[in-house]
Amino acid sequence: MIIVLKPNVTQKEIDHISERLKEHGLTAHVSKGKERTIIGAIGDDRVIETLPLSIFPGVEQVMPILSPYKLVSREFKKENTVIEFENGVTIGDKRVEVMAGPCAVENAENLLEIAEAVKSAGARILRGGAFKPRTSPYTFQGLGEEGLAYLAETRKKTGLLIVTEVMDTTEVELVAKYSDILQIGTRNMQNFRLLQEVGKYRKPVLLKRGLSATIKEFLMAAEYIMSRGNHQVILCERGIRTFEPSTRNTLDLCAIPVIKHLSHLPIIVDPSHGTGKWDYVAPMAKAAIAAGADGLMIEVHLDPEKALSDGEESLKPPKFKAMMEELRKIAPAVGRTI
Amino acid sequence: MIIVLKPNVTQKEIDHISERLKEHGLTAHVSKGKERTIIGAIGDDRVIETLPLSIFPGVEQVMPILSPYKLVSREFKKENTVIEFENGVTIGDKRVEVMAGPCAVENAENLLEIAEAVKSAGARILRGGAFKPRTSPYTFQGLGEEGLAYLAETRKKTGLLIVTEVMDTTEVELVAKYSDILQIGTRNMQNFRLLQEVGKYRKPVLLKRGLSATIKEFLMAAEYIMSRGNHQVILCERGIRTFEPSTRNTLDLCAIPVIKHLSHLPIIVDPSHGTGKWDYVAPMAKAAIAAGADGLMIEVHLDPEKALSDGEESLKPPKFKAMMEELRKIAPAVGRTI
Amino acid sequence: MIIVLKPNVTQKEIDHISERLKEHGLTAHVSKGKERTIIGAIGDDRVIETLPLSIFPGVEQVMPILSPYKLVSREFKKENTVIEFENGVTIGDKRVEVMAGPCAVENAENLLEIAEAVKSAGARILRGGAFKPRTSPYTFQGLGEEGLAYLAETRKKTGLLIVTEVMDTTEVELVAKYSDILQIGTRNMQNFRLLQEVGKYRKPVLLKRGLSATIKEFLMAAEYIMSRGNHQVILCERGIRTFEPSTRNTLDLCAIPVIKHLSHLPIIVDPSHGTGKWDYVAPMAKAAIAAGADGLMIEVHLDPEKALSDGEESLKPPKFKAMMEELRKIAPAVGRTI
Amino acid sequence: MIIVLKPNVTQKEIDHISERLKEHGLTAHVSKGKERTIIGAIGDDRVIETLPLSIFPGVEQVMPILSPYKLVSREFKKENTVIEFENGVTIGDKRVEVMAGPCAVENAENLLEIAEAVKSAGARILRGGAFKPRTSPYTFQGLGEEGLAYLAETRKKTGLLIVTEVMDTTEVELVAKYSDILQIGTRNMQNFRLLQEVGKYRKPVLLKRGLSATIKEFLMAAEYIMSRGNHQVILCERGIRTFEPSTRNTLDLCAIPVIKHLSHLPIIVDPSHGTGKWDYVAPMAKAAIAAGADGLMIEVHLDPEKALSDGEESLKPPKFKAMMEELRKIAPAVGRTI
Repeated sequence: MIIVLKPNVTQKEIDHISERLKEHGLTAHVSKGKERTIIGAIGDDRVIETLPLSIFPGVEQVMPILSPYKLVSREFKKENTVIEFENGVTIGDKRVEVMAGPCAVENAENLLEIAEAVKSAGARILRGGAFKPRTSPYTFQGLGEEGLAYLAETRKKTGLLIVTEVMDTTEVELVAKYSDILQIGTRNMQNFRLLQEVGKYRKPVLLKRGLSATIKEFLMAAEYIMSRGNHQVILCERGIRTFEPSTRNTLDLCAIPVIKHLSHLPIIVDPSHGTGKWDYVAPMAKAAIAAGADGLMIEVHLDPEKALSDGEESLKPPKFKAMMEELRKIAPAVGRTI
Repeated sequence: MIIVLKPNVTQKEIDHISERLKEHGLTAHVSKGKERTIIGAIGDDRVIETLPLSIFPGVEQVMPILSPYKLVSREFKKENTVIEFENGVTIGDKRVEVMAGPCAVENAENLLEIAEAVKSAGARILRGGAFKPRTSPYTFQGLGEEGLAYLAETRKKTGLLIVTEVMDTTEVELVAKYSDILQIGTRNMQNFRLLQEVGKYRKPVLLKRGLSATIKEFLMAAEYIMSRGNHQVILCERGIRTFEPSTRNTLDLCAIPVIKHLSHLPIIVDPSHGTGKWDYVAPMAKAAIAAGADGLMIEVHLDPEKALSDGEESLKPPKFKAMMEELRKIAPAVGRTI
Repeated sequence: MIIVLKPNVTQKEIDHISERLKEHGLTAHVSKGKERTIIGAIGDDRVIETLPLSIFPGVEQVMPILSPYKLVSREFKKENTVIEFENGVTIGDKRVEVMAGPCAVENAENLLEIAEAVKSAGARILRGGAFKPRTSPYTFQGLGEEGLAYLAETRKKTGLLIVTEVMDTTEVELVAKYSDILQIGTRNMQNFRLLQEVGKYRKPVLLKRGLSATIKEFLMAAEYIMSRGNHQVILCERGIRTFEPSTRNTLDLCAIPVIKHLSHLPIIVDPSHGTGKWDYVAPMAKAAIAAGADGLMIEVHLDPEKALSDGEESLKPPKFKAMMEELRKIAPAVGRTI
Repeated sequence: MIIVLKPNVTQKEIDHISERLKEHGLTAHVSKGKERTIIGAIGDDRVIETLPLSIFPGVEQVMPILSPYKLVSREFKKENTVIEFENGVTIGDKRVEVMAGPCAVENAENLLEIAEAVKSAGARILRGGAFKPRTSPYTFQGLGEEGLAYLAETRKKTGLLIVTEVMDTTEVELVAKYSDILQIGTRNMQNFRLLQEVGKYRKPVLLKRGLSATIKEFLMAAEYIMSRGNHQVILCERGIRTFEPSTRNTLDLCAIPVIKHLSHLPIIVDPSHGTGKWDYVAPMAKAAIAAGADGLMIEVHLDPEKALSDGEESLKPPKFKAMMEELRKIAPAVGRTI
């Protein structure tokens, strides 16, 4: 922690700060410059994270030098985390894994048909919402446990792994029973109780970036889960909120190399929500792989015109298949398979 | 709903859209212009909200003409909603109510001392967090039920009403037992399960605007609560996320007149979180009242240097008192009392 | 300048950095902490501003401790800058000055009628555009010199001072001939050639904040003007670009106390552009004064329905007069006159 | 243009609006719905673009149905615009063209060495600034005409085309004399006088997207140039301003397919400014090509540690060469060459 002092700081103020640092087990290292005196607080920044040093008399600004996360950091664990599943699927390894399926589970028949279509195109994980966080209380909220049952049934028939969203602490046990990956949605990225709850399980968690979360806050949300013992976290970039109205969100693909630099966790991309329009999904999926993504999450629907949610951004199975073929050309160009 | 068609749309495509509208009980009103043909879908926009018309063949864009919320709207209820409490406190009426207190409840003694100080300065509602949503899992997370008990005890001794945050569906009953107003924090504005849960109670809810929530989404979150039967919602503007780093958030004071225009619900302002720095709290509190806010929420701490959270933005009791005196000059200038 | 080094930095890397600092006349002060070694570069940060230290081997991050501006800073000049005009008008002093008038000058008669109306309501400065920066090349671009002549004529008849925009280096001399204050528009805040050009004149400059300019960049733009010798700069907050669509821009009123803290320059507010809707102008004008603004810039039009630009946000003279009466109640509540 | 009327609109108000539309040569098509009456204004939206219909009595909202640009639109010109140069270089055709070179021209020797390096790696256009728009008035502002002369000399020796920035209307003629492509920088995207000026020339213009420009505004800026007769506009995505601090800007790669959809103009990407850090340049360059970019603009410097500007984001020649080799694998995977 670096504490920059005001030009007119007094010795008494410097002493006061130094003493408070000592109380927290830190050493104050005072250094007088030409225009400013600074104090280097030697020790663990995290200890004094909540100490509001910026309001101490004589302080101009405070600059932390350590990042606030630990378990998620590349510094803590150098090699990439690879999430492994029983059937041989891995996330974070050489193969780019594709999660595909409908936004919401609507009925058993359609789900199976979509599952078979995405499987034959190369996906190994089925996505589908049973609990749906909808902006309006008047729109379809998902089939609930019935939807989870359809997902489990489809897994049995196809061998696809299941990823589905959990919205509340009281639903984690239920969702964990039916699914292989617990998804935390964008709007719940800082639902800390939910993060703590999924942290107690030993099941991979797919954590979506919040609409206006910085990468640092995104990693801190993962830290919440890991701090409870669950180290199997998959990060998912899905677009952030900006001023640009021509896409639903602005897909921040540079988050991929930034996160690879800061953390050992795998990072996948959801171009369906990230763009909000089906015809932008394929170009952004290609770009995501080129940028180093470990996987993709894609919305697929048999008849998007009749989808109960997010029809605008869903691909029909033939379009999905065509996209997968294009992705198979991109992946080897960056040393990956798909 | 207005559906703008592509320049080269075919009659078959127009017929297809018209039929789908009919299936949803709407009448298609086709109107051929010089450069575009448009279809007016006569009926309730909300019925077809989830129909992904934008992907229908021949469609260029779709423009809803009704807002997606109903119960929160000024159109639904013309007169202002006034929340009334047993002790005569009202929110949304002529008097600007001030909620003040520590960010987090730390112990019984300090809480009482702060409570007495803010009461003597003119506040009638005590704020204080027992359950704290913290960005880091390693920082103080609140005293939990012990903190709630201190709040209730302080209410008994001072007569102040209590507002405190509830973070999870499983905690609503507990928090409702101890507090007069249930606070939903910024990070939970779209925690739909929690909104639904507090919607079942008959206790006022203070709903804070999400970091990157549009006013429309903010009102939709209130609609979630109201749609479950709880019509006592107090909105709270507390700053949005922008590119500007010199304040913690950007306080969007124009949200006050915008919300007054669109909705009948009361709207208060939290300049402590909205700015993140105690010396900007007073100017923004004054501005909020001048802009028409129905109340304020202010962080006060006996010794901000030692606060366990948000010390940077907390006022000491004498500064709070001085600010209240300044506010007493502003309020009458806009026809209010405080 | 603080240079935080990587955990695994070598002595050779430290030496290399130290030497480069010496070459720039700075002293390297190395300090080894528990988790990181840091180098304090003693001397003037500005000297090494362009030295890309962050890419030096062994460097983790670089943190400047001095602000990049000098002449605009409160540290450089403690007392507020007050701009004085011949007729006794001052900006930055106790009186809140109001600049009012049409978005664009349309003809001599209307201009005079508006000028007389705003004058009788209490404005002492007339605004009006002769050169209009329009988003579309197909809309009204202003009357040019003819418009400037109308402004000058109106000044003669009413005694009002004139503020009008200059868009290009080649037009500064012309605009300076006719006006009392040179306005630099939002889109030109970082048109550095134009800033340098107005910096050569000895006429007050009204500098509008760029749509996505941080306060630091805003002050740096003022520094450009001042560095050429023109110290009469009036800053103008006029809304920033955010994700919120219900207003044209998001008026950042907290910029007022932030700028008062960092700089000695006067700061005024333009709630017309800041909101984009005439019915939000009065509440935001009141809030601006309550927050400490030194002046206001307001669009007024005789018949906004027929305005050639920005009719949506213009007040009719009676509304303007009513607003001024409301402002006259707010100003004394914060120790100002109007 | 669709005009949505308030629920309580009167016939007199409807008549008033209809009459005003007639005055502008438009036909009012009134359509009464269940909850709202709407007026379709039949004719050219652009005619009434400046008519502030939203403030007419009885109007709730106004929705344009045509885009404000014409010449840049895909509707106006279906096939892609391809910019052709004498030496066979094309932009917008199958080959992805790479523009590379230093941020600022520093001296003749280094420029030539960089030019030869980027040429041998496959670039056919040399970038380099002679006039530099710098945030601070105290940093290196470019060599001016001397720098232009070095660029021209280097062109002669290497056969590379030259792209360099023009900052002011008075400099266009000079820059046009020395360069093959006139670059308009981010901060000048809405410097309308400059756009008009370069619109008079018959030389390709590289137009960079403004920091907070929507795609629509970006296209309108191109329309300004084209409306003056210069149809050779190359668009450049270079990152937008968001809340995310870990990169200098947020590169909006989805702008590529969006612009390809709306316009016939070529679009290239600048990952150097778009990320601000050299180690993110290669992943984003790859992603840009995968997303369909027509070209890249890359900063290259012999010794970034000593660069006079933007050293942080510059690649050394060997890194640039390595990146070009990676790009040569990506391009064919999307049907392009490089």
